[in-house]
Amino acid sequence: MPDFLIEHTPSAYKYPLLIKHLLHAPMTQSADQEIVYRDLSRYTYRDLRERIGRLASGLTSKGVRRGDVVGVLDWDSHRYLECYFAIPMLGATLQTVNIRLSPEQVLFTLNHARPKLLLVNVEFLPLIEQLQGQLESVEGIILMSDDGVFPNRPVKTVGQYEEMLANSSPDFTFEDFDENTRATMFYTTGTTGAPKGVYFSHRQLVLHTLIDLVGFGSPAQQGRFHREDVYMPITPMFHVHGWGLPYAATAAGVKQVYPGRYQPELLLNLIKTEGVTFSHCVPTILQMLLSAPNGGDVDLSGLKMVIGGAALTKALAKAAMQRGIDIFAGYGMSESGPILTIAQLREHELTGNLDEEVELRTKTGTPVPLVDFRIVDAEMKDVAHDGRTPGEIVVRAPWLTMGYLNNPASSEKLWEGGYLHTGDIGTMTAHGVVQITDRIKDVIKTGGEWISSIELEDILLQMPGLSEAAIIGVADAKWGERPLAILVARRAGSIDDASVQKHVKTYADKGVISRFAIPDRIMFVEALDKTSVGKIDKKVLRTKYGDG
Amino acid sequence: MPDFLIEHTPSAYKYPLLIKHLLHAPMTQSADQEIVYRDLSRYTYRDLRERIGRLASGLTSKGVRRGDVVGVLDWDSHRYLECYFAIPMLGATLQTVNIRLSPEQVLFTLNHARPKLLLVNVEFLPLIEQLQGQLESVEGIILMSDDGVFPNRPVKTVGQYEEMLANSSPDFTFEDFDENTRATMFYTTGTTGAPKGVYFSHRQLVLHTLIDLVGFGSPAQQGRFHREDVYMPITPMFHVHGWGLPYAATAAGVKQVYPGRYQPELLLNLIKTEGVTFSHCVPTILQMLLSAPNGGDVDLSGLKMVIGGAALTKALAKAAMQRGIDIFAGYGMSESGPILTIAQLREHELTGNLDEEVELRTKTGTPVPLVDFRIVDAEMKDVAHDGRTPGEIVVRAPWLTMGYLNNPASSEKLWEGGYLHTGDIGTMTAHGVVQITDRIKDVIKTGGEWISSIELEDILLQMPGLSEAAIIGVADAKWGERPLAILVARRAGSIDDASVQKHVKTYADKGVISRFAIPDRIMFVEALDKTSVGKIDKKVLRTKYGDG
Repeated sequence: MPDFLIEHTPSAYKYPLLIKHLLHAPMTQSADQEIVYRDLSRYTYRDLRERIGRLASGLTSKGVRRGDVVGVLDWDSHRYLECYFAIPMLGATLQTVNIRLSPEQVLFTLNHARPKLLLVNVEFLPLIEQLQGQLESVEGIILMSDDGVFPNRPVKTVGQYEEMLANSSPDFTFEDFDENTRATMFYTTGTTGAPKGVYFSHRQLVLHTLIDLVGFGSPAQQGRFHREDVYMPITPMFHVHGWGLPYAATAAGVKQVYPGRYQPELLLNLIKTEGVTFSHCVPTILQMLLSAPNGGDVDLSGLKMVIGGAALTKALAKAAMQRGIDIFAGYGMSESGPILTIAQLREHELTGNLDEEVELRTKTGTPVPLVDFRIVDAEMKDVAHDGRTPGEIVVRAPWLTMGYLNNPASSEKLWEGGYLHTGDIGTMTAHGVVQITDRIKDVIKTGGEWISSIELEDILLQMPGLSEAAIIGVADAKWGERPLAILVARRAGSIDDASVQKHVKTYADKGVISRFAIPDRIMFVEALDKTSVGKIDKKVLRTKYGDG
Repeated sequence: MPDFLIEHTPSAYKYPLLIKHLLHAPMTQSADQEIVYRDLSRYTYRDLRERIGRLASGLTSKGVRRGDVVGVLDWDSHRYLECYFAIPMLGATLQTVNIRLSPEQVLFTLNHARPKLLLVNVEFLPLIEQLQGQLESVEGIILMSDDGVFPNRPVKTVGQYEEMLANSSPDFTFEDFDENTRATMFYTTGTTGAPKGVYFSHRQLVLHTLIDLVGFGSPAQQGRFHREDVYMPITPMFHVHGWGLPYAATAAGVKQVYPGRYQPELLLNLIKTEGVTFSHCVPTILQMLLSAPNGGDVDLSGLKMVIGGAALTKALAKAAMQRGIDIFAGYGMSESGPILTIAQLREHELTGNLDEEVELRTKTGTPVPLVDFRIVDAEMKDVAHDGRTPGEIVVRAPWLTMGYLNNPASSEKLWEGGYLHTGDIGTMTAHGVVQITDRIKDVIKTGGEWISSIELEDILLQMPGLSEAAIIGVADAKWGERPLAILVARRAGSIDDASVQKHVKTYADKGVISRFAIPDRIMFVEALDKTSVGKIDKKVLRTKYGDG
């Protein structure tokens, strides 16, 4: 019904939400602001803008056109930042290639995304050399090198990055196009099946950038990002756009530091010498930073750090706080682009009491604006926001992937019922504080209640006689599903089913867990199957002892 | 070329940017937060959400449908906030009626916007009574009253606001629709011609809300709005959506205070008793607050105030700072929805030196993100960003009016060349700091240079012998235009043309003003023509002494 829509006078500029528009504010206000690469180089936003133009001109001269895919294999660098802008701005799609995957998986993602051109850091030349005979779409490779040294490898290159920029015009005209044009893509690897491609449009990235700035900008004090911060990512730029923060930092015009490959001593040194005040990483990287040899000398008290990708444990948060870091959790995933929640404290919660604060800083957080964040039962009805009732987290937001690339079945499953299914189980308080308790595939749905296998395992492991415990769901005609407890006793035969049930019942009596959690199916085994990295392999347990 | 666009799996939610989506975050996190109306009532966000549903149900029962216009005549109230959401959310257009206009102008705007229904505070019943015989579109009037008293007037009402809400269901289903649906409209009154209608879509208001939160949220310290502020508008809600801040404050879930009709003592009392920390107004209101009898007792040291609508003078800013107010300027206009720039200081600029800070706080400000803010010459070429070279301010942003309602000629003039013409003349520094120097209609374009009539008048008035001075542009075959100085001497005949020229030349020699500004056409008159409010009437001067 077009008569309800606003009228546009013919000369009016309709303003599509394109990534190029993020550059207006920084180029007006921060043209002299610095962007630093390791301890190797530094330049200004004015240089960044010029190099974005040169990169677009250069890629065009190599045959890149609107709609083409260009893959990048690099550590976190100023070059990557240039690619974040130039490739989408010319209408192509930036594929951020996850170089931590196995060669077979990298090959799969490249042949699935079908990039025309690859920009490759020389460190990954051995990988490309190994794969190049099987690359189906790649017409050329452009090499990037920190030191200007290019190893002589039998790889068909069509140019070198810096040389290409030097020979290309900075005056590339970035045309307008539809804001729903694909800007980026990358692959997510679940525990099963082939990697799945997610993709994001210009509109989605611009909105995600604004929400990053709103979400991290709006707390009164704790966990805030502002225009005078110094930003450094320690989440790889190939991983969900470095959580979107390189775009946000650029739009805010702050000083930025790109650390290349993560080396604890260099990271700590950059924090110190460049005055980094805002960063983000996964828990293992934080652990690595805190335990770096000689790292204890570096004053981290001005540093704000968002932790995501995995749960921030209380012990790690406490250790970070004791080093003076303003530490807090965030939550999102590849499919969500990623930001969904941030765990920022309110003024009255900043008590200075370490344990109280750690409790709140390690929560999953509260949803950022525009996120329609629901916790639902199996019928997609909202559960109570009482901080206790678990349900699946399903979301809508303007920046979520609209499917998996060329994978209609998985796409529809992801968006079943019109909400993106995170696969996470969580609770929410009356004040919107979310806590993830489990992955939905590890939850036992029994008698209308959801039992967290993680919680039940924790309770079982508090029996002194047990050394290992795993819970899997097994089909049950009456209850739908029942927990099967697979246990390892410290001394064979020292524990019986009744004592296990009695132990869990004491927790149920205290209201810690539902009475439905008391296992009626219990089995003792000599050892639990493990994955190659030593985690309990529930997939194998399900095959051996469960229904499948 | 649709193959470049992202694919949407059929079940994916495409997420139109609709005003209803601004409510997700506050309803999740701030349901118990307060919204206060004068010293009369208070309720929670939960109540707000329920009343938005009731209002939509009630208006629907009165025949309001998608595409209809609903006009509101009220002071700043919780009811107005409810209308900001409910009316657009049901797909209708909210017309915020400027009740400060003359009755003839109000009539013009109502017959031009063609509202189906009016929501009218009983204080405006006399006005409606006067106009109702000539209202062409209005089918019914719903009365609003603070005290439940409804004067017996011969006005055809179809209901009372609170009664309608009480009798309507809170469970209204707000359907999705196109984000380009018109959400609001109001009229801007220039110095000439009939009021012109501007209009804004859901998409535009959502983006403006995010940018308000980014712009006011991102400074390190000075002039920032955050989630624990207490917000009170002192810019009328009928005026450019109260600068958009009621939407931003609601999306942020902060405590809000609506002051009704502006009464200095009540305003100061609300600031004190409700703990208001963030507000905004025009200079005259700030002046009124600062000079209120007994107002000196109220501690204003926690208050942040954005000043817009007219230039913030240094004297006024200084007086506000001396009362402890964190005062700073913003810039925008009805056509721009309004936000374009904010004058926030950087950390190193917060010297505590009153005069230095006042200098910066009274600037026009730096552009907020996404604004393509240009200062251009007559050929639409960018002028130098040197803080000296003036040009017209033209802008693009995703929240500007796309034209004037049913006024194609003015719409095209507004958007000539694809940029919205602000009609303001300004300069910009290398760091993006804008300073407006004049209105374009008062600028003299001579010999390729732009001379600010305001600056030249200021210089002339520093001649002790002159009591009044006005500069108008007159056509010139050689120079395009030349300044004509119309002067009033304190003592007739005491000053001659040569001494005037000599005076201006000393300023030109110092580089304060261009040599082209030295007037060669000078006339002395007995008095300058004035408007009814005592301002020099250049329109009359142009007719009497100029070309037109």
